[in-house]
Amino acid sequence: MTTMQHSVRNGVDTATLFATLDAVKGNPDIAKFQFRATNKWVSGTHNQSTISGFYGAMQEMTHQQPWTFDADHPAVLVGGDNGPTPVEYVLHALAACMTAGLANIAAARGIQLTEVESTVEGDIDLLGILGLSPDVRNGFEQIKVSFKVRGDDPEKLRQVVEQSRQRSAVYDIITNGVPVAIEVDAG
Amino acid sequence: MTTMQHSVRNGVDTATLFATLDAVKGNPDIAKFQFRATNKWVSGTHNQSTISGFYGAMQEMTHQQPWTFDADHPAVLVGGDNGPTPVEYVLHALAACMTAGLANIAAARGIQLTEVESTVEGDIDLLGILGLSPDVRNGFEQIKVSFKVRGDDPEKLRQVVEQSRQRSAVYDIITNGVPVAIEVDAG
Repeated sequence: MTTMQHSVRNGVDTATLFATLDAVKGNPDIAKFQFRATNKWVSGTHNQSTISGFYGAMQEMTHQQPWTFDADHPAVLVGGDNGPTPVEYVLHALAACMTAGLANIAAARGIQLTEVESTVEGDIDLLGILGLSPDVRNGFEQIKVSFKVRGDDPEKLRQVVEQSRQRSAVYDIITNGVPVAIEVDAG
Repeated sequence: MTTMQHSVRNGVDTATLFATLDAVKGNPDIAKFQFRATNKWVSGTHNQSTISGFYGAMQEMTHQQPWTFDADHPAVLVGGDNGPTPVEYVLHALAACMTAGLANIAAARGIQLTEVESTVEGDIDLLGILGLSPDVRNGFEQIKVSFKVRGDDPEKLRQVVEQSRQRSAVYDIITNGVPVAIEVDAG
């Protein structure tokens, strides 16, 4: 039990984390993952996604349980407000990815965290998606993430946030873009 | 009541949709929105976001209720699997945005929808975020969206999907990238 307590920091099992890194070094195919979401239209701008299965570590896997998430537009955007807008889920994903990375990196470096909070703000001009101005893009014009981090000394904590930014999947997706292919079965 | 029934198609209130477009044409400032998410670290890779307030139509607004969403890594990635991974939320956001757009565009064009389903797959090589290969990016290498759409004739439905792609906020964010600024209060 003493060994186990020593290997867990910030809620991260660092012994398992390092063992996983060693396993991947021994066989890089373990690191090839495919994540998935399926979505069903409900009515109007209301639809629901399910997240359950994924491929990773050379096998099909499933989460402990399937999760469903509703998305919709608010009334001011002619929706039923049955869930957040899709773009708000993007902001959540960015905060979640950087925060998970922060905890992992701090644990690996032996840095104690006591508190991590963040606010993500995304500015969007709807003239784009409404098709009312060719000069306005459809998506966010800019995103700002504000972190409050407490634990070890401030300089170390700032370095951990910076390293999390450099290793965040969602930060990379949002800042650098990803090619998207679309297939349609229209009957 | 007859008028109201006629103005609703695919669950979209097209009369209100066109009135909103007219209002925005009259005052483009109505279209400036800011969406937000706040996130709190729980433990390890587990954290929780709340989505509630936003700015739009020249005023602070709130959704009908606040929503909270857990994110985590699965056990195979040394997490507790208390929620989807952050990158899965990105896939959900893409499906949700294109599906909402599809319903709005079809309604505006007088095209009937009976069914819309989609699967989104994102391929990611974790050698990137694990810091094990400088040649591998952190985020998805590619994303594929597969739509099944039923309703009016197939050619019209395919055109609606294409128009949804051209006007999707999340498709634009993911394919073209957005600048992200990060601020840190480390105590």
